Amino acid sequence: MRTQVAIIGSGPAGLLLGQLLHKAGVETVILERKSKDYVLSRIRAGVLEQGTVNLLAEAGVDARLRAEGLSHEGFALGFANRRLRIDLKDLVGKVVTVYGQTEVTRDLMAAREAAGLVTIYEADDVALHDFDGACPRVTWTESGRAQELACDFIAGCDGFHGPSRASLPEGSLQTFERVYPFGWLGVLADVPPCSHELIYAGHDRGFALCSMRSPTRSRYYVQCGADEDLSAWSDERFWDELRARLDPEAAAHVVTGPSIEKSIAPLRSFVAEPLRFGRLFLAGDAAHIVPPTGAKGLNLAASDVHYLAQGFAEHYGERSSAGLDGYSARALARIWKAERFSWWMTSLLHRFADQNSFDRRMQEAEFIYLEGSRAARTALAENYVGLPY
Amino acid sequence: MRTQVAIIGSGPAGLLLGQLLHKAGVETVILERKSKDYVLSRIRAGVLEQGTVNLLAEAGVDARLRAEGLSHEGFALGFANRRLRIDLKDLVGKVVTVYGQTEVTRDLMAAREAAGLVTIYEADDVALHDFDGACPRVTWTESGRAQELACDFIAGCDGFHGPSRASLPEGSLQTFERVYPFGWLGVLADVPPCSHELIYAGHDRGFALCSMRSPTRSRYYVQCGADEDLSAWSDERFWDELRARLDPEAAAHVVTGPSIEKSIAPLRSFVAEPLRFGRLFLAGDAAHIVPPTGAKGLNLAASDVHYLAQGFAEHYGERSSAGLDGYSARALARIWKAERFSWWMTSLLHRFADQNSFDRRMQEAEFIYLEGSRAARTALAENYVGLPY
Repeated sequence: MRTQVAIIGSGPAGLLLGQLLHKAGVETVILERKSKDYVLSRIRAGVLEQGTVNLLAEAGVDARLRAEGLSHEGFALGFANRRLRIDLKDLVGKVVTVYGQTEVTRDLMAAREAAGLVTIYEADDVALHDFDGACPRVTWTESGRAQELACDFIAGCDGFHGPSRASLPEGSLQTFERVYPFGWLGVLADVPPCSHELIYAGHDRGFALCSMRSPTRSRYYVQCGADEDLSAWSDERFWDELRARLDPEAAAHVVTGPSIEKSIAPLRSFVAEPLRFGRLFLAGDAAHIVPPTGAKGLNLAASDVHYLAQGFAEHYGERSSAGLDGYSARALARIWKAERFSWWMTSLLHRFADQNSFDRRMQEAEFIYLEGSRAARTALAENYVGLPY
Repeated sequence: MRTQVAIIGSGPAGLLLGQLLHKAGVETVILERKSKDYVLSRIRAGVLEQGTVNLLAEAGVDARLRAEGLSHEGFALGFANRRLRIDLKDLVGKVVTVYGQTEVTRDLMAAREAAGLVTIYEADDVALHDFDGACPRVTWTESGRAQELACDFIAGCDGFHGPSRASLPEGSLQTFERVYPFGWLGVLADVPPCSHELIYAGHDRGFALCSMRSPTRSRYYVQCGADEDLSAWSDERFWDELRARLDPEAAAHVVTGPSIEKSIAPLRSFVAEPLRFGRLFLAGDAAHIVPPTGAKGLNLAASDVHYLAQGFAEHYGERSSAGLDGYSARALARIWKAERFSWWMTSLLHRFADQNSFDRRMQEAEFIYLEGSRAARTALAENYVGLPY
């Protein structure tokens, strides 16, 4: 088998790249280690920057998003018993759209199928070859049979644990990492959200986030230990802990119900540089991870894909290598800014075991400063809605 | 002896309080442990917020400041080989004034002498008594003879190591502290400054600051170990290290010369709460310390003194205790914001021994974000010129 761009991974990064390249007349094959149902069962973030929405429109997959996505003109920061609304529309004239990553993935899969494009699910033992030469190949096994795909380029959109980044020779990447000493315990429940906008709450007991997927489906999180046992968290304990970390009004509006998903996610900041090695390009979580505070993960994957799709379109259309040559630097410039914002927002709102009373007061002082400073709120807002591409 | 307000300490906080109270018709006596010459030999900060300048005008001690002070409409942040100007005037419509703290002290001393107000220098063994009752007293020895001053109130303006805060019963104050694992090595020299505005430079080798006292007197600093031996720093070594941490243009403009003062200062963040205990009020460094990055120490002492002088004026003039009762909360609200800013600017620009490569990139990303964001520069500028009283 042969294609122009082999895409490793059918998460939103790989699928969006596939659609954008299809629009540009570039052939792709997507290889995915897991099944389609497995991919669609993963619960991820749910806040889209306008730039991400624009890209989905460009890819022609925004019909349901436009119909069902919730436009949010603001969000709230909580601190102890107080709440501060960040009025995105007023501060920076932009909004965000609440629409689950799983739904984005579903829409992209449907569009790919409708266009008759090839995605190979349950591809075992995916391996990348010869990407430092002119003729890269990808091999895998399908039901035990060895398969091979020849291609011009490989796009590694296979997440933090995928084979793409792992294929690179030792020493070819510089990596930067911070592992946070805690996790997020998330619960999805079919209950109306406690607030019509998101609340990111810092509290002596730890961080909490009130989010939603729709007017009848809520997504809540509480900061927990990195190694906590999920079985120790009954639904009841979760709801009690959540309410204890919110301001009284928000707590009073929490509607409880049985969890339909419950999981603990670690928090990590990670960047690998550069994003290109010969004819292999990394995009999204394959190259960088942000902690989920501020919801930058999917949006950052989208901007990577935007730059990369432009690069491929220029290569095949205008026969120019400038876009591909500049991809790594362009994408990394935006990645580092989003890493900074996610790190800052995580540092502001979480409890850290090694904090002393001065450090806690610095968090409180930052919150109070934000209350009083339009400039500080504007800086927060411009990052939250997404810095320009 | 008897007075209305006994002021402990003849630094700028105590002297400014004395002048403002004199204008309000309130009697004061200042007690100072050191000699006048010693006080005037201490080299401290040199950047005044407009609010501080206004207070000095209100106190009638701004004639020389207006004549000799340098109005600065901006300053620069350095990072590796780059420099970013923060245009204060453009961003927030305000400026700062470069005028040495020592000169402020000198002007205040002259005004106090001209008004015939009492300052007792070289007061040994200063001790505060009965400030939790109606009749506070201060005792000291003068050339070996015991002395006593009865008063209505005591203002503790005697710095971090003075007797005022130390007089408080254990447990009456809550303290918050961070000690930074490095110091600043400062050099004063009669050479023209390398830039007409201040440069705060972050560098792999550590922080450096280019400041000045006049067009012919420069004040430079480099970050050094907290326990370094001053004798290991020849002038030559200092100038070499300074230039190595600046961008090429700034480094090329450094004019070297013999140091006329050289010292190492530790960096500390510290706040004690509350600022009032009965009839004793703490102000300035007696209650809080900021690291010098951003030059907030003297300015914060000035805003404390503003609130405190208002409180005393209301007490004696309008017979209202509201100002004195509200002093601690009002002053602390501003103190915590300045603590946050000083901590942030220190964290942004210094090397920390426990930083990994990700942490260093966060500092760089913050610098790059500031380059690109007017909102972020505005937030920095509004703090640098001084948040409103």
